[in-house]
Amino acid sequence: MKILLEIAYVGTAYHGFQVQNNAPSVQKTLQTALESFFGKKLLLSGCSRTDSGVHAKQFFCTVEGDLSESFPFHKLPIAASRFLPDDIAILSAKKVEDSFHVRYDVSYKEYEYLILNRVEKDPFLSARAFHYPRELDIDVMNQAASLLVGKHDFASFMAAGSKIVDSVRTVKSCSVEKNGDLVVVRVSADGFLYNMVRIICGTLIAVSEGKIQAEEIPEVIAACDRKRAGMTLPPDGLYLAKVVY
Amino acid sequence: MKILLEIAYVGTAYHGFQVQNNAPSVQKTLQTALESFFGKKLLLSGCSRTDSGVHAKQFFCTVEGDLSESFPFHKLPIAASRFLPDDIAILSAKKVEDSFHVRYDVSYKEYEYLILNRVEKDPFLSARAFHYPRELDIDVMNQAASLLVGKHDFASFMAAGSKIVDSVRTVKSCSVEKNGDLVVVRVSADGFLYNMVRIICGTLIAVSEGKIQAEEIPEVIAACDRKRAGMTLPPDGLYLAKVVY
Repeated sequence: MKILLEIAYVGTAYHGFQVQNNAPSVQKTLQTALESFFGKKLLLSGCSRTDSGVHAKQFFCTVEGDLSESFPFHKLPIAASRFLPDDIAILSAKKVEDSFHVRYDVSYKEYEYLILNRVEKDPFLSARAFHYPRELDIDVMNQAASLLVGKHDFASFMAAGSKIVDSVRTVKSCSVEKNGDLVVVRVSADGFLYNMVRIICGTLIAVSEGKIQAEEIPEVIAACDRKRAGMTLPPDGLYLAKVVY
Repeated sequence: MKILLEIAYVGTAYHGFQVQNNAPSVQKTLQTALESFFGKKLLLSGCSRTDSGVHAKQFFCTVEGDLSESFPFHKLPIAASRFLPDDIAILSAKKVEDSFHVRYDVSYKEYEYLILNRVEKDPFLSARAFHYPRELDIDVMNQAASLLVGKHDFASFMAAGSKIVDSVRTVKSCSVEKNGDLVVVRVSADGFLYNMVRIICGTLIAVSEGKIQAEEIPEVIAACDRKRAGMTLPPDGLYLAKVVY
């Protein structure tokens, strides 16, 4: 039987979702909790890898194993919560067809990158936002963001040394919004390259700083050269926000 | 010279603001950081005690010591930030008259109590909100809240064993607001008794549950008996939100 879990987690304590040797991962922590709860060995698969320190407001994984058909899976969020640490929560659970694939069946995903844009720190956003003290130019960032939308080879926005061969992705939307001291960059795409959102956000900041002009973005994309894009921002501000099947 | 600091802190790691024997406090941590920064012994006084685990979005303290008149104190939030842990931030700093008293000159304070009102946990609100899974009746809570406003003896809303003799306080406002899954109780008063906001919030939840009727609130106040009010909610959801001089 296959169960689809919707979860959320604060990524600060984990080296990403995926199981790592000798480092805590969300996958291993969740699997251990569910195996304790059900008293059975289980196979857990996630919709995405996330990097060390990256958060998820919405993340899906499937659980496969010899589970009872009669178990009220919709009650799992409460029933299993005592087995989980406070930085991981199950939001919903339901049976799915065995043919459902939690990773390949994703239609698109949306990431959010949170920037605290003021001089003073905010202790409530420590490890949960990137602190950028100078005033950001939201209009010019949005001009640049709109030029990233579409089907492109995003090799310029992929971590150097990444082994992915096909770096063509379709960015559905990319926008920047300011609410008080908080700036949120939202990027949705059919798939993401390694560090792609963090490099996009670093590039948008370079645009705000005048180091890259908004109208140069098509050239930065066309160059297929990591050195043409901006810096990779830290993981603290990054949230997987929405996964659509 | 006397400097007024506006600070904010996540209280989870501290046994309150006030210096404690053998337990970390915000006061001690801040004092150590500022003494390292200025290279001088300093006297630090806070606007309030806060309990273990309670947070502050806005908190004031004064720093007294042999400081240079020419120091640009408005730059202290950035300059001293490397000396502080990530869970405490200085928001502003300025010189004040020696006659200014950070505690006695307070006109009123406002606390917020945050309740996550849904079945599932939210990992981002762990230690930052009280998790209450059943649906709260906001209207009836607001009826009860409005009956707490005014100058009353709040002995029923004071931790048992508290040594305060005069338990008369003036509650300026008390209201409950719901935004999606989040319920915020806001209480402003000229002063607060030990655990007063946490007992008020426990009482409002008892009203939502029908264990206390909203119209009984005047009787609960008049009884001057801790046993008549609701339970003391945990510190996780409590924030000192505003301090007005």
